[in-house]
Amino acid sequence: MAPQRMLVIGGDATGMSAASQARRLKAADELEIIALERGHFASYSACGIPYWVGGQVEARDALIARTPEEHRRRDIDLRMRTEATEIDLAGQRVRARDVDAGTEEWLGFDQLVLATGARPVRPPLPGIDAPGVYGVQTLDDGQALLDVLEKEEETPGGRRAVIVGGGYIGVEMAEALINRGYTVTVVDRGPQPMSTLDPDMGALVHEAMCGMGIETVRGAAVTEVLTDGGGRARGVATEDAEYAADVVVLGLGVRPETGLARAAGLPLGESGGLRTDLAMRVRGHENIWSGGDCVEVLNLVSGRPQHIALGTHANKHGQIIGANIGGGYATFPGVVGTAVSKVCDLEIARTGLLERHAAAVGLQFVTVTTESTSRAGYYPGARSMRVKMIAERRSGRLLGTQIVGGEGAGKRVDIAAVALTAGMTVEQMTALDLGYAPPFSPVWDPVLIAARKAAAAVRDDLT
Amino acid sequence: MAPQRMLVIGGDATGMSAASQARRLKAADELEIIALERGHFASYSACGIPYWVGGQVEARDALIARTPEEHRRRDIDLRMRTEATEIDLAGQRVRARDVDAGTEEWLGFDQLVLATGARPVRPPLPGIDAPGVYGVQTLDDGQALLDVLEKEEETPGGRRAVIVGGGYIGVEMAEALINRGYTVTVVDRGPQPMSTLDPDMGALVHEAMCGMGIETVRGAAVTEVLTDGGGRARGVATEDAEYAADVVVLGLGVRPETGLARAAGLPLGESGGLRTDLAMRVRGHENIWSGGDCVEVLNLVSGRPQHIALGTHANKHGQIIGANIGGGYATFPGVVGTAVSKVCDLEIARTGLLERHAAAVGLQFVTVTTESTSRAGYYPGARSMRVKMIAERRSGRLLGTQIVGGEGAGKRVDIAAVALTAGMTVEQMTALDLGYAPPFSPVWDPVLIAARKAAAAVRDDLT
Repeated sequence: MAPQRMLVIGGDATGMSAASQARRLKAADELEIIALERGHFASYSACGIPYWVGGQVEARDALIARTPEEHRRRDIDLRMRTEATEIDLAGQRVRARDVDAGTEEWLGFDQLVLATGARPVRPPLPGIDAPGVYGVQTLDDGQALLDVLEKEEETPGGRRAVIVGGGYIGVEMAEALINRGYTVTVVDRGPQPMSTLDPDMGALVHEAMCGMGIETVRGAAVTEVLTDGGGRARGVATEDAEYAADVVVLGLGVRPETGLARAAGLPLGESGGLRTDLAMRVRGHENIWSGGDCVEVLNLVSGRPQHIALGTHANKHGQIIGANIGGGYATFPGVVGTAVSKVCDLEIARTGLLERHAAAVGLQFVTVTTESTSRAGYYPGARSMRVKMIAERRSGRLLGTQIVGGEGAGKRVDIAAVALTAGMTVEQMTALDLGYAPPFSPVWDPVLIAARKAAAAVRDDLT
Repeated sequence: MAPQRMLVIGGDATGMSAASQARRLKAADELEIIALERGHFASYSACGIPYWVGGQVEARDALIARTPEEHRRRDIDLRMRTEATEIDLAGQRVRARDVDAGTEEWLGFDQLVLATGARPVRPPLPGIDAPGVYGVQTLDDGQALLDVLEKEEETPGGRRAVIVGGGYIGVEMAEALINRGYTVTVVDRGPQPMSTLDPDMGALVHEAMCGMGIETVRGAAVTEVLTDGGGRARGVATEDAEYAADVVVLGLGVRPETGLARAAGLPLGESGGLRTDLAMRVRGHENIWSGGDCVEVLNLVSGRPQHIALGTHANKHGQIIGANIGGGYATFPGVVGTAVSKVCDLEIARTGLLERHAAAVGLQFVTVTTESTSRAGYYPGARSMRVKMIAERRSGRLLGTQIVGGEGAGKRVDIAAVALTAGMTVEQMTALDLGYAPPFSPVWDPVLIAARKAAAAVRDDLT
């Protein structure tokens, strides 16, 4: 019997995890695997780019989890610089173009994996395509930015960077450029940076960034990228002001890259992401799979689909798709919306719903915030942190948690993430048996302190 | 109406938390609160003693959460150096002795809180009471040890310490004495130090301690404390060898201090701890409460009662007792057996059941161990860690997790602690939405990696 063919579009986290997992389960005589990657790199950690640009990670290759040669040695036919340009559903085939040669061919498939990822938001502003404006989505993007940073390091004098957008990428790039000796201005249109937090918690990030010497302009939409006589970016303009810069970095987030899928008539949700079932099969299509940054996932707290571009989900999706194509059965139940990041020594984390999300889905809730420390107060290195907790009125069910603070703050969000997954109430959380010793936690862990206050708020709200 | 009287025996975590919480809920005209403490200190962090002795915490007073004066200002009549010597249940009164004056009086109560804590295990060995043998249970113990350490620092030459017992206190004291410049030998009768871990995980601790220059003698019970001509301890002997030392520190764990309760006929469990209901009321006694190091708690995983001396439980118990005496209603559902500690830069954590515990309660299980890192492998400061996971056969329910590794390893046990509380299977855990960014975690968190391997082991075991 001729082997089946698994065709993967996109050679990054989801695509290559799916290919690897399927190969583990089925040998080449049962399953042929072809993967198409239009860029120069496959299987790399895009999340690591800010740290490479910032100099904490020295070599680009450190971000590459597995080289094309390593994939090929495992009988995965990974074709670099090869772009899928059309999906023919009726013919069960994909048109593939050799980007360098310009040649095209049709490749048939038995199982198709769409792992096309996301593309950075790039608003149609005057000057946005000028040289000197950098994205940080791909290793190629990172290399281009790093080349100019390293060149500018040789020229004396103060160097300035403007970062457009104050979300995860924006604050991570602010840290990277501070590390490179730049004077950094972050321009964000929201009331506070980190719109993935409630504004009161975002305000803490704003304050801390000011303390690090990062100028953060709030409530200001960029209207234009300013260019010099040679057409090169020299800063940005908002309605009220101009900000000069040697480099402009775009950190406005990403949208699902689903042009191919849309053209083929595959089902997209409101976010623009592909709609899949729990097994990561594209809805209504038995042998088409998708995951990672180009799909919608179910938020288990709100019950609504949403688009989240995050390497950890992408890897899980790939694993699940590969297991299913390989003859197993695996599912992805959904997310609770956990994210963690840092800017210099400030850790920023969230899980579940923000206040506005909870309100948007019609939930009634109470919120509390508490101040505590990462370790016993008397233990060296204890850092302060603020924990905000949102719980449903009456039931007391945990709806969300946000944490901003020093070292040791960020990963505490996992406690709340597991509790959310389990549907725990804040009252139940007060009894959690968390690890305690003075170097690790105060005798009441900060999450327990927040849960106690939230439980009291739920009780008080009832009476 | 005359106020009710709440009488508290023991002025530490449970006792003073109970007093404080009750006072928050009831004013002095409703509730009189008397607390008896036989020592020189109240409301202190015994868990912090090793770090004070080791010099990371400079002042003893940093360990004191609230002074007697602060308690008294809140209308809590805390009587220091006052020991309860008898409980008269029929008369609803307690005999109290002024330790310094030697006088005694009977104090009546409406509500009695037994917070007598634990006492260190002190086997009846020759020489055990010699000068130069130190416990580390109380601030007085810590001060006595510190006095001799600081005196010895003035005398030149290599100083040697022997620590009897390789559990939490033992390894924490090993770190403390290394920090003080001592050559440290830990003598433990188990096959590996840290008998709160399975031996394979304890072996990692042993290896790491060797690397830190801490001699760890395994499988060796101390038979005698050796003394010099002046009757002062000069080392210890086992069956096979002698170990010379300038100081001998006892770290053999603790037992519930329940002599008073036993004499009064209150119900004790097999561990010697008081038996309470979920509200922390002593079984069968409407107005007698107990918590902290002198009670048994329910292990939610095994369904069995056990004795665990840990400040975080003691504080929770006090809070609950105070709420209940104050007219509210609160309960302590039980523990999952979480503990975290460190020796120098090695973090050690566990939750749930060890293999031998699971076997003892008749559970059938599979185990896996995995190696991973605390951060993305390419990110600076990524430390290796080993995670061991135990899951029930067939059901796949998580039974326990042990983690040993570098910075960032220890508090990851909280993920497993919450999952245990929620009764999750390892399969469910593979989908947990944990915080991911390169400075915080590999794209698969170490706990997810272990859960995946455990889930595979459960599946393979079925087929």
